[in-house]
Formats: sequence, structure tokens, C-alpha cells
Amino acid sequence: MNIRTIDWKNGKVRIIDQTKLPQKLVYLNIDKIEDLWRAIKTMQVRGAPALGAAAALGIYLGIRSYPGADWSGFSRKLKAAAKYIANSRPTARNIFWGVERVCSVALKNNKQPVSRIKQIILQEAKRIMQDDISSCRKIGLYGAKLLKHNSRVLTICNAGILATIDYGTALGVIYSACAQGKEIKVFSCETRPLLQGSRLSAWELYKQGVDVTMIADNTASSLMAQGKVDLVITGADRIAANGDSANKIGTLNLAILCKYHKIPLYIAAPASTFDLRIKSGQEIKIEMRNTGEVTNILLKKSIAPAGAKALNPAFDVTVHQLISAIITDKGIIRPPYIKNIRKTFGENKCI
Amino acid sequence: MNIRTIDWKNGKVRIIDQTKLPQKLVYLNIDKIEDLWRAIKTMQVRGAPALGAAAALGIYLGIRSYPGADWSGFSRKLKAAAKYIANSRPTARNIFWGVERVCSVALKNNKQPVSRIKQIILQEAKRIMQDDISSCRKIGLYGAKLLKHNSRVLTICNAGILATIDYGTALGVIYSACAQGKEIKVFSCETRPLLQGSRLSAWELYKQGVDVTMIADNTASSLMAQGKVDLVITGADRIAANGDSANKIGTLNLAILCKYHKIPLYIAAPASTFDLRIKSGQEIKIEMRNTGEVTNILLKKSIAPAGAKALNPAFDVTVHQLISAIITDKGIIRPPYIKNIRKTFGENKCI
Repeated sequence: MNIRTIDWKNGKVRIIDQTKLPQKLVYLNIDKIEDLWRAIKTMQVRGAPALGAAAALGIYLGIRSYPGADWSGFSRKLKAAAKYIANSRPTARNIFWGVERVCSVALKNNKQPVSRIKQIILQEAKRIMQDDISSCRKIGLYGAKLLKHNSRVLTICNAGILATIDYGTALGVIYSACAQGKEIKVFSCETRPLLQGSRLSAWELYKQGVDVTMIADNTASSLMAQGKVDLVITGADRIAANGDSANKIGTLNLAILCKYHKIPLYIAAPASTFDLRIKSGQEIKIEMRNTGEVTNILLKKSIAPAGAKALNPAFDVTVHQLISAIITDKGIIRPPYIKNIRKTFGENKCI
Repeated sequence: MNIRTIDWKNGKVRIIDQTKLPQKLVYLNIDKIEDLWRAIKTMQVRGAPALGAAAALGIYLGIRSYPGADWSGFSRKLKAAAKYIANSRPTARNIFWGVERVCSVALKNNKQPVSRIKQIILQEAKRIMQDDISSCRKIGLYGAKLLKHNSRVLTICNAGILATIDYGTALGVIYSACAQGKEIKVFSCETRPLLQGSRLSAWELYKQGVDVTMIADNTASSLMAQGKVDLVITGADRIAANGDSANKIGTLNLAILCKYHKIPLYIAAPASTFDLRIKSGQEIKIEMRNTGEVTNILLKKSIAPAGAKALNPAFDVTVHQLISAIITDKGIIRPPYIKNIRKTFGENKCI
């Protein structure tokens, strides 16, 4: 299967509409910043690394039709586009990183003609995609060392091809181990409310020929208690300087189950997911989404009594004490995290 | 709201069809043992205490039309009906207890005319319903002592009115505390795959005027980490002599989360759920259900790629070390369980 989650094609951002999977593989061609914002908000495109590229491309969509040739007017337009995209979803670090990366390259080139700066922004957005592809391959290779022949891996949500440009982070580790000839068995937690584990991860793993079994999120502990899980790997949406990691709601559950059952929990994420400006996970803003995602299945079939209240946090924070290691494109980071994250990425507050 | 989960009306077993909730409150009138077996299997009626009554009434449906007047032929018919009902679902102790209770009363009266024995069986099935109503009230009163004004309780699945004849076990504790004037806030885990937490518990709690908030199962740990849960109460399907308790898949998850977050976990169940013939939870047979319940929502909307594998254990076993106390109709049992369960119920291997 050769799929690409997000790309720049014929002057438009081409994405897979992930709300239509697994029934239909539908591509959307987006040429307005407002449509891209909505695609992020409604999770037609999702996954922290893919969102970094989406944010950068979105800014290009927002500024490309600026009619003037003056930096000051253009930079106001750029700032407005950046602010708009940054307001789409609050948790994934990569959105802000993508925004900052294109804004920074524009600022560096502010003596160039505006038409040239526009091209530089587009090139930078394309470079973000290229860099992500190479980051995921590196994460895959580093992480594959942690998987043995016949390892049984449990994962949640989707940190695969569909969460990145290509290949994936957590699932990239699995693809890489499989490419090395290891047999890997995967349990995919379905990941309510939006079912990314069944709709997306089970879909792409199955298409890639990986042995995958879907489970209700409630089943993880039972499998662990029966000795059927060797390790857990998940992605991340934002990682603080101390290693605390925000990821899809339910990841903290798994981390606590891992501790109890003495099973390692690995987080796989590129440098762009680290936010070294924040000391701990307590500073991470957790997105509260539409409660209709809980009271209904995929915003359609109602499973709740009329009038019932619901809560729908999209993420939780796994404290670093529960994380065995973080698999990055710069290598595997182990505790103590404050020291080793700094050693890996240097003192740059912005990676 | 005055609802009754299971009853004997006009010569038929009347049940609420729980697969139709929360959209529709539909009653079914069942007069054949085969239809009752199917109602149990498909979970139109479910919940361990309700299943005890359903099993007993089912046996009456199976034997009432026996044409002969001879004990030996009748007892063969009775045994066949008992075996048939006992094969409906394997985990809930109450099914077997209900079967044994009517068989035992028939055997004790085997010198009576067959027509009289049939009446005795029906009376016993009705007595099971009466006893369950009174058991639930007692569980409610004992358990309410554990809830303070403004307690925030998290529960899973449905151990309420709809799991019993009336009132409930875990939810009975909440109803009892509310009746004493305590304000109680409930978080109801939706309980995938069959969503009893949202479809049934949120429905009945809301109808009873209790402050209930639905959450995806994945959200429990996040709420606990934020200090928003004071205690967890669940029902049980079978409790071993050492206190190990089988309950809906996901209960073990919650128990481990409780231990990590230092929150008490209480199990609420009547004597009929205890199986003192088994030493530990390892001897409890876990029902594996149709994987279509995982790959689809309520056996309808598909959420999985075609061909994907799934696993669907209906229960897990919470080891007694994770249980703070068991709330029964004979009082609250605390550790050490082997000793205190025996003290509560005596040496009877069959309660």
C-alpha cells in the first residue's frame, strides 16, 4: 500500500480524509486556509507530525494571495494566518512548531521580495514534510531494536502512516521491526471516542500485512494479566522538558497498567513534538472536544439518553516516571529525562 | 420512574429489552425457554442478579408443559432445562445459582404430584425475585455508609435497576445515599463494547434524577489524576472464596487505576454472586463473545477494516488485593477475604 497522508499537489494541500476511514479512502484537495483549519479541527487530518506539516502548508494557503509587495503588510498577514492556524487545536506541539518554523524562515528572509518570501514559505513547508519522512525512518530504526522476534505490542490511537507524512512513529517502529524480518503481533486499542485505533491503526497495519487484533480499550489490562503483551508503544502530542508526555486520552491508563504488570511503555515521537519551554506536563493545555463524540458514535448514532452530560478531554498526560524510554529521531532517550532530553537536543528551547 | 427489569406477568416472563435502550423502552413477553435462552445470550436481559431470576423463570417455562405425572420423566425434563439454561452464558454465578435453587426445591418436593412441583418451581422463581429486591435494598443501605455528601463516584457497566429486579447493587448504593439526602456525582464509563454504561447506567441514573456524566472508558485515569473521583463502585458476576471478582471487562483496569491513584474500589453484590466452591478467580470461566461487538457498534455500524481480527472477552477478574471492600446484603466484607467471606456466609459451599 502506498498512501500519503498529506502532500502538496497542483497548488493544493492534498490530504486523506481520515473521518471516512476505514470504509472509504477519500482524498481532499484544499486551497483555502479556512478549509485547512476546519480539516484540522474536525480531524480529517490528525496526528501530531502530520499536523506540523498541515499547519505550515495552511499558512502558505493563507498568505499566497497577499496582493502587496511590502514586508510590513505581508508580515501582518503572515501573523494573522499563524494565529489563526495556531488556534485550531491546542495540544499537539507540532502545530505550533510548524507555524514557528515557517514564520521564522520568513522573518530571516524579510529583505527579499514578498513574492520570493512566499516561495520560501512553501519550500519550508515542503521541507517539513521531507524532514518528517526521514525522522520517522530514524525513529523506526532506533525503536526496532526494542522489539524482538515474536514481540507482542499493544498500542493506542494512531501513530502510524496516517499520523505522519508517511511511515509513522509508534507504528513506524513496528514496520521497521517487520522489515527486519521480525514477526510482530499487534493489539490495537480501539481508542474511544473517535476510534482511531480501529478505524485507522487496524486499517493501516492490516493493509501493511502486520498481524493486528482489535480490542476494546477495556481489554488491555486483561491481556496484560494473561501475559499476552510484551510492551506498549504510543505516539505523543507534546513532550515537556521533564519527559511528561501528552497523548491520546487513555495513554495514562495504559501507562499505569504497564507499571502494575511490569511491562515497558515506550513513547515514539520526533524532535518536533518536544516542547522544552515547558517544565512539566502540568503546563500542557488539554483540548476539550465536543461531547457529542462521547454521546454518539462518530457524531452519528446516539448511545446516550437524551439530556445526559458528558466529558470529552482529547488527551491525557503520562508522567515521565511511567515512561520506560522515548524513541526519537535522535536516538532513544532514557531516564533521567531532564538531563538526557537536554543532552539530546541541546539547550534550544525551541527545537 | 417505576421500571421493573424482569417480572412474571400473565403466564409469561416480561423483560425490558435492554438492547433497545436508551432509545426505546420496550418490554418483551416470553413464554418459551428457547426465547428466554436467546434473550440471555443476546443480552436483552443481563446483569448477574437479573440473570439469576431469568434462569429460574426459564426453567419453569421449560418444564411447565411436561405432559406426564411421573417424577422420573419430569426430573429428566427438569435436568435438560437446567442444563440448557446453564449453557446460555458461562460467567455470572447467579445463573447457576438460580438453576440450582429451583432444581433443589423440586428435588426436595419429589414426593408431591408433578403439577404441584411445577407450582413450587414457579413460586421459587418468584421468591428469587422478591429476595433480590430485598437484597438490593440491604446492599444499598450498607453501602451508602461509604458515600459522603458530595462524593464523586465512578462506575462501569450497569449494576443498577436494569441488572437486578429493581434498585441495583452498585447503583443501589448510590440511590440509597441519594435517598438519605447526600448529593452524589456519578461518572459512568461507557463500557465498550456493548456500552452498558452509557446506554443503561446513564439512562437510569438520569431518569432517577442523579447527577451523571458519561465518559469514554479511556477517561477514567485522567479524572482520577485530577482528583475528581473519590471512589469506584462496580457490581460483580462471580466472586471466588478469596474475594477475586469477575466483572465486566475494564473493571480490572479501574482497580489498577484506583490502586495507583489511592482511591478505594468497592464491589457490590448479593450473596448469590459468591461461588465458594472456587478458591480463586483463576477458576472463573470468562465468556468470549462475538467479535462483531468490537468491530461494529452494537453489531451494526462497522468501525473496522474488512478482515481485521478482534478479541472480545466479556469479563475480567479483579484480584482481591485490589478490592477495598465487598458490599453485600449481609454487610460489608473487608480483607482478609478468605476468613471474612467464610465468617459472613458460613461454610456453605453453595450460598
